[in-house]
Amino acid sequence: MEIVELIRKKRDGYTLSTPEIDWLIQQYTRDEIPDYQTSAWAMAVFWRGMDARETSDLTLAMARSGEELHARDIISPVVDKHSTGGVGDKVTLAVAPLVAACGVAVGKMTGRGLGHTGGTVDKLESVRGFRSSLTREEFTGILSSHHIVLAGQSHDLAPADGKMYALRDVTGTIESIPLIAASIMSKKLAVGASHLLLHVKVGSGAFMKTLEQARALAGTMVTIGRLAGLHTVAAITSMEQPLGCAVGNALEMVEAIAILRGEGPQDVSELCYHEASELLVMTGSARSLSEAETRVEQAIRSGAAVAKLAEVIAAQSGDARQIEHPELLPAAPVRVMLSTPRSGYISAIEAEQVGRTSMRLGAGRFKKGEQIDHRTGFVLQAKVGDYRTAGDPLVEIHARSQSEADSVRESLLACYTWSDAPVSVPPLLLDTIRPA
Amino acid sequence: MEIVELIRKKRDGYTLSTPEIDWLIQQYTRDEIPDYQTSAWAMAVFWRGMDARETSDLTLAMARSGEELHARDIISPVVDKHSTGGVGDKVTLAVAPLVAACGVAVGKMTGRGLGHTGGTVDKLESVRGFRSSLTREEFTGILSSHHIVLAGQSHDLAPADGKMYALRDVTGTIESIPLIAASIMSKKLAVGASHLLLHVKVGSGAFMKTLEQARALAGTMVTIGRLAGLHTVAAITSMEQPLGCAVGNALEMVEAIAILRGEGPQDVSELCYHEASELLVMTGSARSLSEAETRVEQAIRSGAAVAKLAEVIAAQSGDARQIEHPELLPAAPVRVMLSTPRSGYISAIEAEQVGRTSMRLGAGRFKKGEQIDHRTGFVLQAKVGDYRTAGDPLVEIHARSQSEADSVRESLLACYTWSDAPVSVPPLLLDTIRPA
Repeated sequence: MEIVELIRKKRDGYTLSTPEIDWLIQQYTRDEIPDYQTSAWAMAVFWRGMDARETSDLTLAMARSGEELHARDIISPVVDKHSTGGVGDKVTLAVAPLVAACGVAVGKMTGRGLGHTGGTVDKLESVRGFRSSLTREEFTGILSSHHIVLAGQSHDLAPADGKMYALRDVTGTIESIPLIAASIMSKKLAVGASHLLLHVKVGSGAFMKTLEQARALAGTMVTIGRLAGLHTVAAITSMEQPLGCAVGNALEMVEAIAILRGEGPQDVSELCYHEASELLVMTGSARSLSEAETRVEQAIRSGAAVAKLAEVIAAQSGDARQIEHPELLPAAPVRVMLSTPRSGYISAIEAEQVGRTSMRLGAGRFKKGEQIDHRTGFVLQAKVGDYRTAGDPLVEIHARSQSEADSVRESLLACYTWSDAPVSVPPLLLDTIRPA
Repeated sequence: MEIVELIRKKRDGYTLSTPEIDWLIQQYTRDEIPDYQTSAWAMAVFWRGMDARETSDLTLAMARSGEELHARDIISPVVDKHSTGGVGDKVTLAVAPLVAACGVAVGKMTGRGLGHTGGTVDKLESVRGFRSSLTREEFTGILSSHHIVLAGQSHDLAPADGKMYALRDVTGTIESIPLIAASIMSKKLAVGASHLLLHVKVGSGAFMKTLEQARALAGTMVTIGRLAGLHTVAAITSMEQPLGCAVGNALEMVEAIAILRGEGPQDVSELCYHEASELLVMTGSARSLSEAETRVEQAIRSGAAVAKLAEVIAAQSGDARQIEHPELLPAAPVRVMLSTPRSGYISAIEAEQVGRTSMRLGAGRFKKGEQIDHRTGFVLQAKVGDYRTAGDPLVEIHARSQSEADSVRESLLACYTWSDAPVSVPPLLLDTIRPA
């Protein structure tokens, strides 16, 4: 095969065969196809797209490019969960222990935050001693003993995706639905769970700006799952405002613990309970959604859910006391309350801008590999639809210094839009895409 | 500026500004933008195209990336001529001395052949001692003393184009009209003639397969010329069959000499006389096409035209006696006449296939830098529209050995299509594109 022929074929709108895609990914992973040819191919894919079969072939080829964990050979069913990234998104932190507490194993590899969106590994690492970097044996051992493991992304997992993603990032070829879908799903297939619940965010704070784009991405990933034998369901949720109230690593950990105790903010708590229930039904562990909801409620009330989070933290060398006593989690030295500038109803909170502003407090990364400060961030005191009187508390800023706290006031206030008339609150769960 | 922003901008269908294009080409030439970003950008250009202003900016940026010869500062007017490459195309060999013999200077840099299309430098180098590689001082000196110079392409001329072309060649981004136009015109602008006659070939043997494509390419180049201050006219000519009768380097040199003596095949001779006349009119050296045609005829009849070819050959260290006595040009040791396989009218001769078959005799290059044999090739004994009786001579094969000659018989015969009914001969000159 000749790579320039495959570039031309895609450029001219034809589909590539399974052997062609396998060959391309194998050769690229082995550095036998140079970046300048792969980037031209990626731009041609950006332009022409890929059909379901091609996308699934690409995903499988990338999944097989490195180590495969075969989680479902360790325990079955075993669920995985993925979110496309948002602001204040602590859903994985709550859903994973909740599901495990209900008797369904969870084996998950999870990423770090970049730009305005956070990463589950960063939030977990706000717990003293927590180790996200696990060997294959540790991953297997913790999953079989505790029925839950929350590991950082291994570099050996789907290395073709890692290499391709870094190239796409600098060649304007990120925003392609088949390439995004293949990138996400290749890592899921390499972990090898039996069931996967995807959480596709849509809105100003998310990567997918419209419901139509989100549905296309969700549909593509569900189809890849079907073709590759991984039972996949995708929930599409709104990211028009931050999820819950906390934005920042330790602050989100605190909120996740509250959710597991039944004391979290209503929007994100309901979403977490719904997702956990969905996973119990998907795996056949509950016969109906109402039966699943009852079991989720019991796990919350009995304390089993929060205990499961403490258990996995301990299994991964973290200090479980910080889960039992969240006040022991690292806290920022300066807390400043931002007041409401005018009376009225909050009609919008720009999630992406809130995320970008939190980065300036050290809560997020501008570049890969940067250190972050787990302590900083925001706690929103009101959400879209709430009425506030001028002077009421609006946002609690958690900062390293008074000057850093002061420096974000303006841009934080700019995230809010106000209305004199009452505002209706849009639903959080917009759609669920299931295999055809 | 950030290259990834420029890639995204083009990818999303926007136009790039003049400073953006200048910056991109400057940085790429200095190796400060890597190939993998430039290839993604080139694929985005392939997809989205470039408008006239962008294309002219790209051309100028590439023209200024290296040495510039400013030919029109040496002598003015000075004409340049370019052909997009064909099979049996010896037009430049004849037109350049013809125009110079009529008193208009010609300063030309010319390329080598690759694949099925020949190159003027290779044809000139069939003359003993001829030097195509000239220093800047030699180029200038020969042009001002002899009013004609036919140099090989210098590596210092438009190096951005050389680098970009090599990258496009391996990334499926060759067949883009603005990129082809900018590539050709950047080298013309770097030479710096005052007038340019382009010869765009269309048909099965050419790069442009349809008249529509050829018109688009011709129009783009004429517009670049207008925007960059180089008076450009483009003739679109048919390449549905080889041009003239000779295909092969020394054989085409012999035919060019015959054209300059008024003894060449009718199709290619008429085309050369027409092009020369067009150049005399373009430069204002003749007031009308009929006046120009009379002067061209006189240059042929008087022997001035062929003498001018001998003069430039001598000025570039070649053996001028081989022009005065073409039988002294290198000749292949084996000549075999291929006979007509059936009686009938020739309805087609596939030019590209004839070119490819001649490569197997050593007349062309499969890869850049390969040695060629100047002696080998074909002399067609009949053209489209001619009637042949079975057994009549069809093609004279000039080969290094009997076995090589025999090895091409089949594929040569396969280039011909026959008809029992008379066939009309399509015109050679299909259209002429002039500045708006």
